[in-house]
Amino acid sequence: MELAVKDILATIQPTLLLVEDKLREGVDEMFLPLGQGLLNLLDSGGKRLRPALVIFASRFHPGAPLDRVISLAASVETLHTATLVHDDLIDGATLRRGRRTLNAAWPAAATVLAGDYLFARAAKFAAETENTRVVTIFAETLMTICEGELYQLFGAYHLDQDLESYYRRIFSKTASLFAASTEAGATLSGADAATIQALREYGKNLGMSFQIQDDLLDIVGDERRLGKPTGSDLRQGIVTLPVYYFLHHYPQERERLEQALQAEPAERDRVIAKIVEDIRSSPAVEDCRREAGQFAERARQALAPLPDIEEKRYLLALVTALLDRDV
Amino acid sequence: MELAVKDILATIQPTLLLVEDKLREGVDEMFLPLGQGLLNLLDSGGKRLRPALVIFASRFHPGAPLDRVISLAASVETLHTATLVHDDLIDGATLRRGRRTLNAAWPAAATVLAGDYLFARAAKFAAETENTRVVTIFAETLMTICEGELYQLFGAYHLDQDLESYYRRIFSKTASLFAASTEAGATLSGADAATIQALREYGKNLGMSFQIQDDLLDIVGDERRLGKPTGSDLRQGIVTLPVYYFLHHYPQERERLEQALQAEPAERDRVIAKIVEDIRSSPAVEDCRREAGQFAERARQALAPLPDIEEKRYLLALVTALLDRDV
Repeated sequence: MELAVKDILATIQPTLLLVEDKLREGVDEMFLPLGQGLLNLLDSGGKRLRPALVIFASRFHPGAPLDRVISLAASVETLHTATLVHDDLIDGATLRRGRRTLNAAWPAAATVLAGDYLFARAAKFAAETENTRVVTIFAETLMTICEGELYQLFGAYHLDQDLESYYRRIFSKTASLFAASTEAGATLSGADAATIQALREYGKNLGMSFQIQDDLLDIVGDERRLGKPTGSDLRQGIVTLPVYYFLHHYPQERERLEQALQAEPAERDRVIAKIVEDIRSSPAVEDCRREAGQFAERARQALAPLPDIEEKRYLLALVTALLDRDV
Repeated sequence: MELAVKDILATIQPTLLLVEDKLREGVDEMFLPLGQGLLNLLDSGGKRLRPALVIFASRFHPGAPLDRVISLAASVETLHTATLVHDDLIDGATLRRGRRTLNAAWPAAATVLAGDYLFARAAKFAAETENTRVVTIFAETLMTICEGELYQLFGAYHLDQDLESYYRRIFSKTASLFAASTEAGATLSGADAATIQALREYGKNLGMSFQIQDDLLDIVGDERRLGKPTGSDLRQGIVTLPVYYFLHHYPQERERLEQALQAEPAERDRVIAKIVEDIRSSPAVEDCRREAGQFAERARQALAPLPDIEEKRYLLALVTALLDRDV
């Protein structure tokens, strides 16, 4: 039986609801525009995948007090939200999940500060775990994310990026926080080093698989379901895996793409929409599915040494469900 | 005998040098532009007041391992640096301490990310203290700083701000981190609650006094010595204490100021330079000196219950030295 993502999350729904409460804790006492901005962000319908990873990973060893697991789950989700706030500002994105982004409604300066505030709030939640190893994981992950984004920023518009830099980038951007979620969840439970390492490996590979699927959906997905236009990375000159494989199969297309990126916006968007169409019907799609599947398999294998508890089954099901998603 | 700031810091110079090493730890392994940017920021000559507060405050009780004190000192200085990076970006400042700011050299997006990276690095140093109370102080202080900046941003260009909002603003902006430095330093040493509270009060009031003096120097200071033009807050419509008292004494000047703030930049700068001249020769200067002196006195009184150790004398001397500074 194959479970959908929502079925898997439903098994921990009561705990996830406590995380929702935690995410909104103290919002009433915040400076009004900030509190409203935060509520808007929280209501915009993230799946709460990272909190779910924390919760599942914390259950391979008895001993994580529930309130600390909740704090950790809220910490990773708040950190994720903070990075999205700054990412959307940097990318000039005006839509996410079909809603206006914070930077679309607020001045840039206020958006910078709101993101900073959320980083601080995430750090506070991390400190509530009373576990400095968890705080260290938190801080190192944020450093990895920022360094990766800077790398991307200074490296954008270079179409000759290799697979290795693509993988390094999606590790920084996505897999590092998935890995931190499972590692910190397991750490908080007092699990042994091998269990922590296995869950970290699972999270990391799940994150890689997830991001490849995300990058593929940015090309082949349904714009209405995604809540944003397709080809958004490409328009910023960021080479994702589908583009990499497309250029690999059709090296002569590089010139058309290079010219499009240097053209004025209307012309650029027209040509890139055409290239997105071409990628959709190219073998690059199958290449990406294969690679996403390989990381998924590594995620499953990482769990092999762990005891066959219910949570393990859900984590395994999550690998498949995320691979099969269309949004 | 009155000691200058540099004489007071000289008494802990060996420890401050260890903090300098810590601030530069791992820079070689960073993504190159980021590492160079950080070195530039660190070399631009901050006084390291906040690290000094951590070090002095940690010595009222035996028991703070030196490496953790160093980590905490590096954490508060890195947090301070991170807030400056984002502040300068938000304010569009191109000079600080006579050097080009990061945002003057880098694109806005990269500056946002560099600041985020420094927040994460500061959190990592805080976690190295292995004290979650210290991490909580760290996180709550950053929240206070951001909330204060947002408050200022949404409230800028309102000339009718009262004294209470001015004090709230300089607490958020400056005194909160001074208070956090002394509180966390004392916490790390294992001092009792009364000692921690006394040192926090000292830090808070020292910070208030320091910021009033800073705001006064922005009006009466020497541009060459400050390394930036005077009247910079006023040009952004931010009412500091000298302006508040000037308008208090000369309410008829409000209209001239309001018109200047709405004028085009050249005209605005010309009129504001004239207003700055007028404030310099007004009773507002003495009003500010009086208020800075009152907070300084509260800082001294906060230390009264503490034992008469050498560090106490330096902290008392620091109050006077910061009040008397001209840069």
